[in-house]
Amino acid sequence: MYRTHTNGELRIENANQEVTLCGWVQRSKDLGGMAFVDLRDRYGITQLAFNNDVSTELCEQAKKLGREFVIQAKGIVTERSSKNKNIPTGEIEINVTELTVLKEAKLPPFTIEDETDGGEELRMQYRFLDLRRNPLKNNMILRHKMGLAARTYLDSLDFIEVETPYLIKSTPEGARDFVVPSRMNPGEFYALPQSPQTFKQLLMVSGYDRYYQIVKCFRDEDLRADRQPEFTQIDCEMAFVDQEDILNTFEGLIKKLFQELKGVSFSDDFPRMTYADAMERYGSDKPDIRFGMELNNLNALTQNKGFAIFDSAELVVGICAEGCASYSRKQMDKLTDWVRRPQIGAKGLVYVKCNEDGSFKSSVDKFYAQEDLKDWADKCGAKAGDLLLVLSGETNKVQGQMNDLRLHMGDQLELRDPNVFKPLWVMDFPLLEWDEDSERFHAMHHPFTSPKKEDFDKLDSAPGEVRANAYDLAINGVEVGGGSIRIHDKDIQSRMFDLLGFTKEEAEAQFGFLMNAFEYGAPPHGGLAFGFDRLCSLFGGQESIRDFIAFPKNNSGRDMMIDAPSRVDASQLKELSLGLKIEEKV
Amino acid sequence: MYRTHTNGELRIENANQEVTLCGWVQRSKDLGGMAFVDLRDRYGITQLAFNNDVSTELCEQAKKLGREFVIQAKGIVTERSSKNKNIPTGEIEINVTELTVLKEAKLPPFTIEDETDGGEELRMQYRFLDLRRNPLKNNMILRHKMGLAARTYLDSLDFIEVETPYLIKSTPEGARDFVVPSRMNPGEFYALPQSPQTFKQLLMVSGYDRYYQIVKCFRDEDLRADRQPEFTQIDCEMAFVDQEDILNTFEGLIKKLFQELKGVSFSDDFPRMTYADAMERYGSDKPDIRFGMELNNLNALTQNKGFAIFDSAELVVGICAEGCASYSRKQMDKLTDWVRRPQIGAKGLVYVKCNEDGSFKSSVDKFYAQEDLKDWADKCGAKAGDLLLVLSGETNKVQGQMNDLRLHMGDQLELRDPNVFKPLWVMDFPLLEWDEDSERFHAMHHPFTSPKKEDFDKLDSAPGEVRANAYDLAINGVEVGGGSIRIHDKDIQSRMFDLLGFTKEEAEAQFGFLMNAFEYGAPPHGGLAFGFDRLCSLFGGQESIRDFIAFPKNNSGRDMMIDAPSRVDASQLKELSLGLKIEEKV
Repeated sequence: MYRTHTNGELRIENANQEVTLCGWVQRSKDLGGMAFVDLRDRYGITQLAFNNDVSTELCEQAKKLGREFVIQAKGIVTERSSKNKNIPTGEIEINVTELTVLKEAKLPPFTIEDETDGGEELRMQYRFLDLRRNPLKNNMILRHKMGLAARTYLDSLDFIEVETPYLIKSTPEGARDFVVPSRMNPGEFYALPQSPQTFKQLLMVSGYDRYYQIVKCFRDEDLRADRQPEFTQIDCEMAFVDQEDILNTFEGLIKKLFQELKGVSFSDDFPRMTYADAMERYGSDKPDIRFGMELNNLNALTQNKGFAIFDSAELVVGICAEGCASYSRKQMDKLTDWVRRPQIGAKGLVYVKCNEDGSFKSSVDKFYAQEDLKDWADKCGAKAGDLLLVLSGETNKVQGQMNDLRLHMGDQLELRDPNVFKPLWVMDFPLLEWDEDSERFHAMHHPFTSPKKEDFDKLDSAPGEVRANAYDLAINGVEVGGGSIRIHDKDIQSRMFDLLGFTKEEAEAQFGFLMNAFEYGAPPHGGLAFGFDRLCSLFGGQESIRDFIAFPKNNSGRDMMIDAPSRVDASQLKELSLGLKIEEKV
Repeated sequence: MYRTHTNGELRIENANQEVTLCGWVQRSKDLGGMAFVDLRDRYGITQLAFNNDVSTELCEQAKKLGREFVIQAKGIVTERSSKNKNIPTGEIEINVTELTVLKEAKLPPFTIEDETDGGEELRMQYRFLDLRRNPLKNNMILRHKMGLAARTYLDSLDFIEVETPYLIKSTPEGARDFVVPSRMNPGEFYALPQSPQTFKQLLMVSGYDRYYQIVKCFRDEDLRADRQPEFTQIDCEMAFVDQEDILNTFEGLIKKLFQELKGVSFSDDFPRMTYADAMERYGSDKPDIRFGMELNNLNALTQNKGFAIFDSAELVVGICAEGCASYSRKQMDKLTDWVRRPQIGAKGLVYVKCNEDGSFKSSVDKFYAQEDLKDWADKCGAKAGDLLLVLSGETNKVQGQMNDLRLHMGDQLELRDPNVFKPLWVMDFPLLEWDEDSERFHAMHHPFTSPKKEDFDKLDSAPGEVRANAYDLAINGVEVGGGSIRIHDKDIQSRMFDLLGFTKEEAEAQFGFLMNAFEYGAPPHGGLAFGFDRLCSLFGGQESIRDFIAFPKNNSGRDMMIDAPSRVDASQLKELSLGLKIEEKV
């Protein structure tokens, strides 16, 4: 027993008790005749007091303690003369009678404070020190609590957690697999799962009825900011259900998590919106509905009036920024530059200021009369003092650009309160999307998603128009999860592989086991998966998932702390029947 | 909503309710004017009744249902005339008014019954069908419950679950790593973790104080029966603790699991035994203490009497098999053959029968007088009617052989009741073990295990005699977990790597991050890991872990269902800068 208590638990009620505490030196103060040390552990901070009158030696020893030293202190809990209301232990201090340095510490390369002076690279390299800071520690505790709350909720509904394998089979569909050479089967490879999709479906065929797993998944993608090669899903599947059952069950899970972890209650059902509506109204399949500023189709009002750019556009679309008519020339230029950045990619930005006097001032006054501009304003619900922002171009592109601009204006106008949570089910996703590069259809969710019955007849005639029984949950503009009702029929699954350009042989080689399973009595089933890292960052009120992962990789997929990946011994490669095909660095 | 109830929940109280059920056809009976179907799902079986008088069509349809068809049936809950006391739903049946075949099923290649006619290979290939059988389903539910119970217990003690990375760094120490080529870092590899050992220690340095994780681990070993390349641990670590704290905490976990999952209570502390005692008394570091039959050192009583085999042996050791003096010649020959099998490897077996008349009959009567044999019998605690079994040879080998023989006799005499559980802490393991092949010391547990303070001075003089702060928990002769107090000092860790034959450079390259971390304030810490698969099989009363893993690999590391590992595209290898170095099969 190194300690009797943690540094978070002693109160005025403990006064006069003899206690032993352990922890790290957060800071020490030398007041001449006295010394004070803030002792920190996961649970809090307790003040240690050293008095020259009691022991000069002890007091001197305390003054020499460096930051982050690991110490053990024995003493008497005493009421403080000057209380600290900011911490739960602030009414007491420990009058120390024995002090042991358990381990000295080198001075950390950055401060272990809520706001640190360390740059990101340094903190990644010394992740074990960065994790000592409260913000990261609290994130990890939030993550733990969320995992346990999710498990408890799902268990209460008869879901069982089943572990699916990590060493599976590589399939070229979807993102790139990480592969694992098999020593015992030379020339052959396992793959790390991008998700347990096929296994959870097999569990439904096995009759497990309600499955979940909080599980690592792997994708070898070129990492954008905030993507990780390994990430965690809350992965779920149910049998004998339709879409409605799934939405209700997992809406229940999310409500439960909000209630338990954030104290936020949702009394109403989460709103729902079709994919088509979401794209039209928000230009996004994961709209942030904390604020309005919806997209308005201005084609009819803007075209055929002689403005060639609008006339040739597939879509002219406007949003109304409330109260922004007073934007200066400089502000407007800045906005125009913003939409022209390569990340957004708009050619230009048309604006209409709705002046307080009822007149309109636009960047296209040459082409449009005041009445025209008034019609646009009316269509966009703009009133005097508001600003219309208009983009035009190819529908797909301009919707995305307008979505970005809308979110940007939402940020500027402070309409995106991180303490307000607005979930939204987005429904009826397209089954397929056309890929220009490969000139074939890709599955929008994955190849196991079932088409809507009422769109079955379009599978031949207009596959691009077929809608899927697929749904996403977006919260505050972040996609936190998604899923679908699955195909559970061999013929339809086979038809789907056809549409995706698989030969019969490829489909059989890669997914024969699943189609085979469907022939032995597959129940109707469906499910979804939540991005656990993403959900944690949303609950934590932060944008980056990296600080909700204990040991993340950087954008090159590298763990900077342990310096992985790294070279392996030639003998290891030989055992694996592998050779490197790179120019050796000299 | 496909159903109103599951097949496990309807009771006599539900009589006259209209219900809809879904599930698989377990069996159907054609009684002419009536048909009965046993409908199965995860929750149980409910009998469906079809009456010709109600609907000939429905009755005929029911008679045509094949085994494992997936159906939906609507009807009225009705009291059965002949009740089935064996199942919870046995008092009722459903008088079916509507029947829908949701999915037809091919005849399964083996029967979906508690006792199946399918061979192991076939069942592995059709794992999704094997998982439908009650024994496997119950194993998976047990596993789920055990996982959740462990998490709940640990959470109640302020442990937090932290996910550690799966893509880490390869280290040659210990078993072989599975490696994962990095596309973004050509020529470099990640490794899959053999355990999260270093990460959990870093979490202690980070101040997380109490960590756990139920986590997959990977070892690329030549698979013996009942080893899996991927397996699951309940992995735990604590800071500011000594060995006693750890043993108490996790003894509490195991007691809680037994209480909750098996209804078994342990009022006393688990017994403890040193490694040295365990080897001497049982010839094993994981003794099955459900029965006695301890090993007795007979060196003093057997040597120097002219029997060369014993005289030249390092150890002569005997056990007493109670009541076996009556074993026939044939039985004795069979036992001798058993110990001579290559798996056991004894040269021969000496026996002494303690006859009812007080005389002794042995296979070495030529060398030993009756008084000698009596001394042996006394030493082994044998009485009239008992049988002594004696082996001799090198201590290490003969202890292992005698352990095997003891367990074999325990089985024969039915002393190993699977419903009795006898946990035992085995303590004070040696720090190092000498490896003949590599002519150097290996870490008995792992290189992070701390030597006992009182043995520190032997680190130079007699490293093989240094004991470690290491402990295993054995239950019924099965090692279910183990751990140690860790080194938390850079110098000692560095000293340990020296002893294990690492150069300074190797130690730094592989474990520099950990030794570096120790310099920034490492608390004393320790922990342990339980083999989750093994713990499940022990609780399930079965020897094999395979049936407690949903989708296991076979002895060649192959998933026979999905046929992994497999070849990957040449383009995939090219992207990974890899080439195969094998003779291509033609």
